Amino acid sequence: MLYIIGLGLSDETDITVKGLNALKSCERVYLESYTSILLASKEKLESFYDLEIQLADRELVESDSATILQGADKVNVAFLVVGDPFGATTHIDLVLRAREMGIPVTTIHNTSIINAVGVCGLQLYNFGQTISIPFFTDTWRPDSFYDRIKENRTIGLHTLCLLDIKVKEQSIENLARGRQIYEPPRYMTINQAIQQLLEIEESRQENAYTPSTLAIGLARVGSSTNQVIKVGSLQHLLNEDFGPPLHSLVIVGSRMHVVEKDYIRHYAVDTEFDAIVKRDYNL
Amino acid sequence: MLYIIGLGLSDETDITVKGLNALKSCERVYLESYTSILLASKEKLESFYDLEIQLADRELVESDSATILQGADKVNVAFLVVGDPFGATTHIDLVLRAREMGIPVTTIHNTSIINAVGVCGLQLYNFGQTISIPFFTDTWRPDSFYDRIKENRTIGLHTLCLLDIKVKEQSIENLARGRQIYEPPRYMTINQAIQQLLEIEESRQENAYTPSTLAIGLARVGSSTNQVIKVGSLQHLLNEDFGPPLHSLVIVGSRMHVVEKDYIRHYAVDTEFDAIVKRDYNL
Repeated sequence: MLYIIGLGLSDETDITVKGLNALKSCERVYLESYTSILLASKEKLESFYDLEIQLADRELVESDSATILQGADKVNVAFLVVGDPFGATTHIDLVLRAREMGIPVTTIHNTSIINAVGVCGLQLYNFGQTISIPFFTDTWRPDSFYDRIKENRTIGLHTLCLLDIKVKEQSIENLARGRQIYEPPRYMTINQAIQQLLEIEESRQENAYTPSTLAIGLARVGSSTNQVIKVGSLQHLLNEDFGPPLHSLVIVGSRMHVVEKDYIRHYAVDTEFDAIVKRDYNL
Repeated sequence: MLYIIGLGLSDETDITVKGLNALKSCERVYLESYTSILLASKEKLESFYDLEIQLADRELVESDSATILQGADKVNVAFLVVGDPFGATTHIDLVLRAREMGIPVTTIHNTSIINAVGVCGLQLYNFGQTISIPFFTDTWRPDSFYDRIKENRTIGLHTLCLLDIKVKEQSIENLARGRQIYEPPRYMTINQAIQQLLEIEESRQENAYTPSTLAIGLARVGSSTNQVIKVGSLQHLLNEDFGPPLHSLVIVGSRMHVVEKDYIRHYAVDTEFDAIVKRDYNL
């Protein structure tokens, strides 16, 4: 059996009892380590779960999944995923492979930012499609997510923006020279995301949002000790400090309900909140 | 401290280790019992968690929340919610009350249908706003969710439809006579939801969807023993049997990716799947 087990968002205790029980029955345990990160180290997980974990990087999962699946028709193998198992396309691929090989698959769900974002007080049914914001480079500045935000905002909906993660990436030079040297991991901050968003609006000028659009920055969602939520205009949040990763951003839609407003006001970083709400929402 | 703890979707073992630890520290434990249900009974939860649970109906949570919050500034109180804590507006209200009373609140997240629906193989970022379909009565047939489906489908997105639950409802006669007699619980089936959807389309004629639109019926998501997923046209799923509650429905959007198609084909109930995919998706 292949168990695909969600670990939740924060630390080693966010696994479900069902997930932990399944884990204990597995001969091999892989931790997917490139689409998201937990706030706890691999060593902490190993000590808490009392077993050994192998890190699974993109190469292993996408090009060498046979290694992960080997023997899983006879013994139990666990594939651990931060958040919920079906947050990333890549895990869908792994199940398709397992099916081809006649390996049974059991999914053990957990929270992911897709539903945990509700902790900010906006209602989940008022969210449109979720988008991902990739790191811009000098030569690669994709902006198709701008159209998605615009679609959401046209019909009044909130947009959850997932921010890019670069783990085990090679520089172009090292890649070209075939050197197995990796750059330090990078996690996009809310500030970087807003910077890119404002640059795109500046160049596209289609008014999907403005610097004074209301937004919510969320850091380390699910942590009981250092979760941070701040509400303010994009311009204002641009200069706020949110601390270590992971960060997410919500662009608030025009259909905000008065109960949502009452709730998120608690996280307002500045008195501008009331003015924005009056101007944009008449609340 | 008020702990709001998500229980996940299926049984008593879907609670997280963090949630279970918090629960053990609580003097009183309430289980919200009217917006969703777990597949395990209250007695099973009590036995597994080794504590006593009080059922919290709508009246207690919405009109008498002071009872729940009483003393929570001094002792720990747990409020258990099926799925994730922030699936329903009513829990937002409870936190607002707690804040007013100076009671600290800790949220312990879990999976909910909002992210667990990814198990069907459609990508979460291709979903638009989530809608709820209420039971029609002879005189009350609200259809605002039709506009939401249309908005989603206009921009190519999938729509997750949450189906109505009626727990501890009184008949109009019993309500009028002040009799505390409650109707048996009702859980909308996928078949009833489709029936209502087709009736609305029939009367609105705005082509938000048709009887031959591709859809996915999901029953008991998260159960390791009897989860059911079936893919077919609305018309076809109308006559499929999905077994006991809870049921959910997804109306597939036009932006379906080929990997999504490959994955959901596994759950196709009929050979019509390939024809629909060719006709509507050119895949």
